[in-house]
Amino acid sequence: MIRVGVNGYGTIGKRVADAVDVQPDMELIGVTKTRPNFEADAARRRGYDLYAAIGDRLPAFEEAGIEVAGTLADLLDAVDVIVDCCPSGVGERNREIYRAHDVKAIYQGGEDATVAEASFNARARFEAARGADHVRVVSCNTTGLSRVIAPLDETYGVEKVRATLVRRGGDPAETGRGPINDVLPDPVTVPSHHGPDVNTILPDVDIDTLGLTVPATQMHTHSLNVTLSCEPDTASVRELLREEDRLFLIPETAAIDGAGKLKEFARDVGRSRGDLWENCIWEESINVVGRDLYLFQNIHQEADVVPENIDAIRAMCTDESPADSIATTNRTLGVGLESMASRSDGGREPLVADD
Amino acid sequence: MIRVGVNGYGTIGKRVADAVDVQPDMELIGVTKTRPNFEADAARRRGYDLYAAIGDRLPAFEEAGIEVAGTLADLLDAVDVIVDCCPSGVGERNREIYRAHDVKAIYQGGEDATVAEASFNARARFEAARGADHVRVVSCNTTGLSRVIAPLDETYGVEKVRATLVRRGGDPAETGRGPINDVLPDPVTVPSHHGPDVNTILPDVDIDTLGLTVPATQMHTHSLNVTLSCEPDTASVRELLREEDRLFLIPETAAIDGAGKLKEFARDVGRSRGDLWENCIWEESINVVGRDLYLFQNIHQEADVVPENIDAIRAMCTDESPADSIATTNRTLGVGLESMASRSDGGREPLVADD
Repeated sequence: MIRVGVNGYGTIGKRVADAVDVQPDMELIGVTKTRPNFEADAARRRGYDLYAAIGDRLPAFEEAGIEVAGTLADLLDAVDVIVDCCPSGVGERNREIYRAHDVKAIYQGGEDATVAEASFNARARFEAARGADHVRVVSCNTTGLSRVIAPLDETYGVEKVRATLVRRGGDPAETGRGPINDVLPDPVTVPSHHGPDVNTILPDVDIDTLGLTVPATQMHTHSLNVTLSCEPDTASVRELLREEDRLFLIPETAAIDGAGKLKEFARDVGRSRGDLWENCIWEESINVVGRDLYLFQNIHQEADVVPENIDAIRAMCTDESPADSIATTNRTLGVGLESMASRSDGGREPLVADD
Repeated sequence: MIRVGVNGYGTIGKRVADAVDVQPDMELIGVTKTRPNFEADAARRRGYDLYAAIGDRLPAFEEAGIEVAGTLADLLDAVDVIVDCCPSGVGERNREIYRAHDVKAIYQGGEDATVAEASFNARARFEAARGADHVRVVSCNTTGLSRVIAPLDETYGVEKVRATLVRRGGDPAETGRGPINDVLPDPVTVPSHHGPDVNTILPDVDIDTLGLTVPATQMHTHSLNVTLSCEPDTASVRELLREEDRLFLIPETAAIDGAGKLKEFARDVGRSRGDLWENCIWEESINVVGRDLYLFQNIHQEADVVPENIDAIRAMCTDESPADSIATTNRTLGVGLESMASRSDGGREPLVADD
C-alpha cells in the first residue's frame, strides 16, 4: 500500500483525498488545513485524520473543537508521497520541507514547471514521472488540452493548435473574485502562457493560446482549432476522440447547452460534488474544414486533474503500466461518462471502493 | 436634404435617429414605435415626431398621453429613405410596404442578406450600395470583423481568418435574456453563420467563426486570428490598424481591462449613451507569430453599426465619395477615440451638429 498524504484540503485537495481513499493500492494517511474552517470540519466528518499545516496554529483547531492528529511534519513522517494542493506558489516554498522529510511530492499546475523533475499527464506523458521524487501535475486547462491534442497528434499529426480559453472567473466558493458582467482579456498579451505549459507535456506541438475571463464559475470553455497534417473526415475524428476514456463526447440528444446542464447531469448520475473528470466535448461542434479541426470543450477546473494525481502517484511509486494505472483509476472513480450515461445503475456504483 | 425616417425606435433605431439628426445633409422626419413605452416617451422628449408603427394602435398612444404625428404610412409618404430598425425578420416583412410607398430602405444585419440588393460596410463595401433602393447594413459582429480584416487583406493578404466570438447574452435593457453563470456554445455547430456573413462584405476571405454566449451585457469580445500571406512585424500591423478611423487601439497606459472600463471611458468623454462606434482593440494583444496575427477586440453591439447606417444613406441617395461621407459622419458624431483621448475638450464638441 502506498501511504499518501494531502497537504492542503481545499478545492483540489479534498477531491484528491477522496480519490486516494478509494484506490485499492493506496492508503490515505491524512490531510492538512491551515485553519479550522468548514473544510476542516468536513474532513473530520468524512473520517480523515486532520493535521495542522502550520504547527503553531494547533490551538486554533482545539478552540474550534476540531480534532487534529498532529502537524504537517507528523504527516510527512508517516507517508510515502505527499500531494501538495496548496495555493499557487506555496508548493514551491514547501519543496524543501518535503525534501527534508525524504518524501516524494506531487505539485499542482499553479506551480512553475521548474518545481519538479517532470510535468505529468497520464494520457500523454506518464513515463516521464516514473520513479521521480518530485512531479507536477499540469493545470486543468493544460490537462484538458493535452488529452485532446495527444491522440490527434498521434493519429493525424498536428501542424498548429490555436485555442481561445474562455475561463471561469472563480470557483463557485470563491466569492471574492470577478468579473461581474464583463469579459476580460486575461492575459491581454497574446499568446498566453497556456501554450508553453502544454509544451511541458507535448514539447513538439506548435500551439498559440489566448485567454479570456468571464462571469461564470462552473467550468472553463475552450474554443479549439487544430490544423492537422492531413484531412480526415469529421466522423473519423469524432470516433477517435470517442475512444479516449477521459474525453466525454456530449451527444446532441442529451440537450446539454452549457456547464449548468453538464453539472446537473453529473449530479443526477451520482457524481460526488457533481465532478466532471473528463473533458466534455460537444460532439456536434467537432468539425473538420479542410485540415482545420474545430471543437468546443468544457473543462471542470476543480476536477479534471484529480485522476491525473492518482496516476502520478502510481508512476512515481510503482512499476504499473500506464494502461493498468489509468484503468484502475477510471474504474475506482467511475471515470467515463459515455458508458455511465447508458448504464442502468446511473453510475453510482464506482464511487464505492472495490478493494 | 435627404429626408430620413426610422422605423423602430429601439436599441439601434434611437441611435440612428440621433445620428441622422446631426448630419448637415439629412433631416430626421420622424420615428416609429409599436407601443407607447419609455422609448416612445423619450423620443417625444427629444423633440422627434413620433408615428405609430401599427395603425390601429394609435389610441394606445393617445391614452398614454404621448403625442403621435400619424402612422408608419404617413411617415413613409414624407421620406426619401426609411431606416428599418425592427427586430430580426420584421424588416423583411416590411419590405413590401416600403416598395408600395416607393421609398428607399435600409435593413439591419438581423435580416438575411437576400432582403436587399447589397450588404453594406462603409470601409470595405461602400460602392455596392451606390444608388441602390434596398441595402442591408451588416450586423455588429460582421461590421467589426470587416473593419479589421479589410485593411489587413489589402496590405498583407489574408490566407485564413479564425475568430471566436464571445457574445454578450443580451443588451443591458434585455432583462429576459441569459445565460446567468454559464458559457454557451452558440451555435454549438462549427463554423457559425458569422463567417458567411463576413463574405457578404469580403467575398474572397476564407473565414471560420465560432460563437459563444456569456453572462455579460455590455459588449461582444472577439478573439481573432488572421493567418496573413506574409510576415509583417507586430509594430507595422499596430500602425496599420491605428490609421483606421473606426478602430480604436486601447493603449496599455489607459488601464482598460474590459468592457466596463471601456464604457466608463466613453461616458467620461461625453459620449451619448456611452456609445462606442469604433472597434476597441487592445493594442497589447496585437501580436504576429510567424504569419499568424492575433488580437482581442470589443464590439459595442448597440452602436458600431450606427455610423454605417449614416454612410449607407449617402451611398444610396448621393454621389458623395466614400471618404467624404465617412469623414462627415465621423466628424458630426465624434467617431475616433484616439484623438478624443488626447483632446483637451474631452471630445464633447462633435456631438453638436455644425451645419
